[in-house]
Amino acid sequence: MLQQSVPSQQNQHFNSFVTRTNTCGELRAAHVGQKVTLYGWVQYQRQGLFLVLRDFQGLTQVIIPQDEAHSHVKELLSNAPLESVVRVTGTVSPRPSGQENPKMPTGDIEVKAETAEILNSCKKLPFEIKDFIKKSEALRMQYRYLDLRSCRLQSALRLRSRVVMRMREYLCNLHGFVDVETPTLFKRTPGGAKEFLVPSREVGKFYSLPQSPQQFKQLLMVGGMDRYFQVARCYRDEGSRPDRQPEFTQIDIEMSFVDQAGIQRLIEGLLQHSWPEERGSIMTPFPSMTYEEALADYGTDKPDTRFGMKIVDISDVLRGSNIHFVQNALSYPHGSIRAICIPQGVRYLTNKDLGSLKESAKSQFNQEIMEIICRPDGSLKSLLTKFLGEKEQSELIRALNMEEGDVVLLAAGEHKQCSALGALRLLSANLLEAAGLALRDPTAFHFLWVVDFPLFLPKAENPTELESAHHPFTAPHPSDVSLLYSDPTKVRSQHYDLVLNGNEVGGGSIRIHSAEQQRFVLEKVLKEDSEVLSHLIEALEFGAPPHGGIALGLDRLISLIVDAPSIRDVIAFPKSFRGRDLMGNAPDYVTPEELEPYHIQVSWPLEEKEAKKN
Amino acid sequence: MLQQSVPSQQNQHFNSFVTRTNTCGELRAAHVGQKVTLYGWVQYQRQGLFLVLRDFQGLTQVIIPQDEAHSHVKELLSNAPLESVVRVTGTVSPRPSGQENPKMPTGDIEVKAETAEILNSCKKLPFEIKDFIKKSEALRMQYRYLDLRSCRLQSALRLRSRVVMRMREYLCNLHGFVDVETPTLFKRTPGGAKEFLVPSREVGKFYSLPQSPQQFKQLLMVGGMDRYFQVARCYRDEGSRPDRQPEFTQIDIEMSFVDQAGIQRLIEGLLQHSWPEERGSIMTPFPSMTYEEALADYGTDKPDTRFGMKIVDISDVLRGSNIHFVQNALSYPHGSIRAICIPQGVRYLTNKDLGSLKESAKSQFNQEIMEIICRPDGSLKSLLTKFLGEKEQSELIRALNMEEGDVVLLAAGEHKQCSALGALRLLSANLLEAAGLALRDPTAFHFLWVVDFPLFLPKAENPTELESAHHPFTAPHPSDVSLLYSDPTKVRSQHYDLVLNGNEVGGGSIRIHSAEQQRFVLEKVLKEDSEVLSHLIEALEFGAPPHGGIALGLDRLISLIVDAPSIRDVIAFPKSFRGRDLMGNAPDYVTPEELEPYHIQVSWPLEEKEAKKN
Repeated sequence: MLQQSVPSQQNQHFNSFVTRTNTCGELRAAHVGQKVTLYGWVQYQRQGLFLVLRDFQGLTQVIIPQDEAHSHVKELLSNAPLESVVRVTGTVSPRPSGQENPKMPTGDIEVKAETAEILNSCKKLPFEIKDFIKKSEALRMQYRYLDLRSCRLQSALRLRSRVVMRMREYLCNLHGFVDVETPTLFKRTPGGAKEFLVPSREVGKFYSLPQSPQQFKQLLMVGGMDRYFQVARCYRDEGSRPDRQPEFTQIDIEMSFVDQAGIQRLIEGLLQHSWPEERGSIMTPFPSMTYEEALADYGTDKPDTRFGMKIVDISDVLRGSNIHFVQNALSYPHGSIRAICIPQGVRYLTNKDLGSLKESAKSQFNQEIMEIICRPDGSLKSLLTKFLGEKEQSELIRALNMEEGDVVLLAAGEHKQCSALGALRLLSANLLEAAGLALRDPTAFHFLWVVDFPLFLPKAENPTELESAHHPFTAPHPSDVSLLYSDPTKVRSQHYDLVLNGNEVGGGSIRIHSAEQQRFVLEKVLKEDSEVLSHLIEALEFGAPPHGGIALGLDRLISLIVDAPSIRDVIAFPKSFRGRDLMGNAPDYVTPEELEPYHIQVSWPLEEKEAKKN
Repeated sequence: MLQQSVPSQQNQHFNSFVTRTNTCGELRAAHVGQKVTLYGWVQYQRQGLFLVLRDFQGLTQVIIPQDEAHSHVKELLSNAPLESVVRVTGTVSPRPSGQENPKMPTGDIEVKAETAEILNSCKKLPFEIKDFIKKSEALRMQYRYLDLRSCRLQSALRLRSRVVMRMREYLCNLHGFVDVETPTLFKRTPGGAKEFLVPSREVGKFYSLPQSPQQFKQLLMVGGMDRYFQVARCYRDEGSRPDRQPEFTQIDIEMSFVDQAGIQRLIEGLLQHSWPEERGSIMTPFPSMTYEEALADYGTDKPDTRFGMKIVDISDVLRGSNIHFVQNALSYPHGSIRAICIPQGVRYLTNKDLGSLKESAKSQFNQEIMEIICRPDGSLKSLLTKFLGEKEQSELIRALNMEEGDVVLLAAGEHKQCSALGALRLLSANLLEAAGLALRDPTAFHFLWVVDFPLFLPKAENPTELESAHHPFTAPHPSDVSLLYSDPTKVRSQHYDLVLNGNEVGGGSIRIHSAEQQRFVLEKVLKEDSEVLSHLIEALEFGAPPHGGIALGLDRLISLIVDAPSIRDVIAFPKSFRGRDLMGNAPDYVTPEELEPYHIQVSWPLEEKEAKKN
C-alpha cells in the first residue's frame, strides 16, 4: 500500500484498480515478451492486418492474428469501426527490423493480439476525429465528448489539473494555507448588475451567484483563518462577450498581517513552484511598474512587455515648432504630443496597414494620427517636416530612437492619445508578425506587477462623481491616507495587478480593516448605501486584522501557458459566447409548474405570448 | 526557495511572507532569549500585568512591562479591549519557577513585551467568545466570523482542508486521476424537481444548478478522460430539511474500464490515505453486505454496525403456536415475525422508555410492538408466554440470544416491521447510552459497503409503475441483465453505498454504457421522455467505454470524523435550515428593474401585493 505522497508524475499508478496491465502509451522494448492487456479506442485499422489502439496516454500498434485458431479475434478486430472501444490481450513483440517508428514512444514494439473483445462499437462519426480541429467550433462544442479525445484538449486539461495540484501543494503543504469553501448562493452586492439571480422559495427573495468570494474571504480573516485559499467558481453575467464565460475559476487567496510585497512574493513563489517544466522556468521577482508609468509608456494598465515600441512624450521636442495642432494640444493643462516608433515599418507594413491603423484610432478613440517615415537615407518624410528645423528633426529622431525604415505614429491630445497609441502598438505588433517579423518570442512569459492604481475614478456617466477603480474594500496607499479626506481623486490604492504577456491574469489589494475608514469610503466618497454591506462593516468593528489578498484568473492563466487562442480550450465543457451549452442545450425552457415554487413567471413579449397561445 | 512538495504538516511555513517571527502556538523553552514578533487577538488581560494573545495556532502569555520607559506600551496593552488585534515584539523568557503551565503547549515561556501596537480595536462583543457555544445557533450564525475564531470551528475547517488535500494527493499524484471542473450552470434534468433555476437573458429560458456532475462525468469518460475526480459543489433545493444545505460538496469520482470491486478498493485506499492520524487508523477492505441482508438484519440500507441487536426472524419458532396475530401475519405471502433483543433493557430502560418506543413504532410505521422480558430467573414475562410451551420459550431464548434482564421487542407483519424494528434498534441504542450503558465506542469508525440494491422500485404514488432506485444511468447486475427485459422488478443493480456508523457517506455505481440498454431503461422501463437526455444517449453510441464511479458526501464525512452534531459545523458559512444566510441576510428582495434583463417577474400573493401598494 502506497502511503506517501509522491509529487512526481512518474510514480502515478495509471493501472491500479483496473484489469489492464498497461496504458497504450507505456510499452517499450523492455516489455518485449510480456503478456499485456490494453484497453483503448480504435484509432486506425488496416486491411485486417493491424490496428492502432489509443488511450489518453498514447498509441500502440496491435497485430491482428492471421491463423485459423484466432479467426474469431481477426473477425472482431477487422470489423470494429473506428473509435470503437476494445480490449486486447497479447504479447509484446519487437517490431520487425526497419519497421520501428522513432516518432512514436511505443514505436519499438507491437502487441500480437491473442484475445480481444469489442466493449462498445462506435457508430459513424459526424466527422473524422483527426480533421476535427478544422471543423467549426459550434460543431465541436456540440460533440464536445469527441473533441475531448483530441490530444490538444487532453493535454490542456491534464496540464491544468497538474498546475492546480502544484499550487495546492505550495499553498497548503508548504505555507500553511487552509482551503475553505465559501457559498455561491449569496445575496446581491451593491452594483452587482452582472450577478446571476437564483429565485428562492420565499416570495420575492432571490439568491445571487457571487462574482467572487470577496466578502467571504475578508470575513474569514476576521474569523482568524489567517491564510485562506480556494479554487473558487465565480459567476458573471455579461451577456455575450467574446472569450468570457458565465462561470469561471479563480485561485482565490487572502492573508492576515500581510503587506503588498508579501502577497507579491507569495504569488511569485506560487507560480514558480507550479510552473510546468515543459514550458521552461520563470524568473522571480517579477518586475513592477506603476499604473501611471504603464499608461504613459504603453497606453494600457496591462502592458505587453515582450517587445518595445514604448510611447514617447515628444511634447518638449515640438514645443518650439509652429504647428497649429501641436500648439493647440499643448495649450491644454494635460496636453501633450506622443508617439510610437514601429521598427522596420516601411518594410513590413503596407499602406493599407497604415491606413487601417489610423482608421482604427479614429473610430475607436476619435484620435487623429500623424505618421513620420524614416527614409533609407535617414531623412524624415511627413506632413510635419516642413515645420521642423534640422535640430528639431534630429532631436525627434533621437527621442524616438528612429532608424532607417522605421515608421512613427504620432498623436496629440489631452488624455486619450495614450490609449490610442497603446492600441496601435499592439495592432502594429500583430501586423509586423503577420508579415514575418519575429517581434515577440512565442515561448517567452513576461510577468509584470502593475501597482499604485488610483483608488477612485470619475464615473463615466457623471465625471463629478467617483467610483471605486476596483472595489470599495481596497485600502488607500499608506502615503495617501490623509488625501482620502481632502482630495480623494488623488489617492493611490494598495491594489496590484499581475500581467502576463499583456493579459491581466490576477489582481488583488490590501483591504481596508478599519470600520470607520470603510464607512467613510462607502458613504462619503462613493455615496453608496452602506446598509447592504452592514454585516461586513460590523465585522470590521470586532477585531478585524489587517489583511490583503489576490485572485488569479485560472482559465486565462492556463490558456496562456498552453498557448491556446481561447479560454474555451482549457475548460472541459465551455459555453458558447452567447452563454449556451451546445451539447446539452442549456439554458432551456421550463414549464410554468416548475416556476411555481419560486413564485416567478416569465414576462413574455406580447408577440411571443400570442404565438404560444396558438 | 522550497521546491519540493512536503506532505507533512511540520514543514509548513506559517510565517512566510509576513513580519511575524512566530505564531502564538509555537514558542517553547528552546526559544528562550529570542526576540520575537507576534500578532494575535487579546484573549485575556489582567490588571495591566499580563495578557494572553491568541491566533489560529494557540495562546502565548505576554508580560506587560511595568517600568517608566515602557509606560506607553503598558497603557496600550492594559487598555486594549478583549478581541482587539495587537502586534507585540519582545523577548522570550522562561516562566518563573512554579508558574509553568503544563496544559498549555507554550506554558513554559512568556514573552516580555518591549513594543506593541493596537492594529484594530474590538468593540463590545455581543457575548463572551468562550460562552459562545452556549448561545443560540442563530446568534452564532449571525456573527459567524466570531464563531469561526473558536477552537472548534478552526480545527474542523483545518482538518477538512487537510483531509481533502490528502485525498487529492492520493487521486492525482498516486493514481493518475485528473481534476476536471464541470459546469454548474446547466439545464434541468428529467425529474429534477429539486434543482434551483437560474434565469438567463433569453426570454423564458433557464439554467439549472445540477444536483451532481453525473452527466458530465460520464461524458468525460466518453471523452477518454479515463480517471476523473472533482471536489464538486452540488445544489439541491429541498426547502427546509434539518441538516441539509442547499449547496454541498462531494468528492466526485469516475473511472473507465473498472468494475465494482475496483471502485471499492480505490475508495478504501483513498480513505485510509487521507484519514487524519489523530482519529486512529481504519482497516481495509471494508466489510460488505447486500441490500437484502441489511434490510433483514438491521431494517435499513445504512446499518450502524457498531453494535449488535440485529433483527431476528422468529417466524419458525412461533409457527406452531396458537397466537392469533402470529398466525394472521404468517398467512400472508411475505408475512413474518421478527424481533430485536435489547441487552439489559430491564435495567436501562424505564417503562416510559418502552412506552415511547412502542408509540413511535405505531406513529411512524403503524406497527404494533409486543414486548418480552427475560426475568432475573431466566423466565419470560410477556402477554405471549401463556400461548407458548416450554420448548417454544427456550427456542425463542436461543434464537434471540436472550439473557437475564434483556427486553425483546417483537413485530409481526408483511413488510414494514423490519423498518420499524430498525428504527427501534437505533432509538433503544440512544436510550441505553443516555442511561449510561456503553454500547458504541465513540472513537470507532465502522465502514460498510451495501451492495446489490434493486435497480428499480415501485413508485410510491403508483406502485404499478417503476422508478430508478438511484438514477437511470445505473447498470444492472451482470447476472440479472436478461431479467431487465422479462421482470425488471427483480433486477439487482451495480449500485453500492458506503455507510459509516449508520450514515450514508457515499454512493455510486457501474453505469450503463450501451446506448440501446440506456434507451430501453428510460423508455420501456421508466416510461420517461428520453429526449432531454438525447445528448447523453447519443454519446454512448460514439465509443463510450465501460465506466463507473462514486461520490462521497464530504460535509457528512467530515462531520462524522470530527464528531460534530451537524454538517453546519464543518462548513465555514452554512445556511440555516430554512436556507437563509443569517449573517448577510440572503436570499433578499431585488428590484423589478434587476429582474428585467431576465424577463421574469415575481408572482406576489394578492395580499402582499396590496400591502406593497400601501
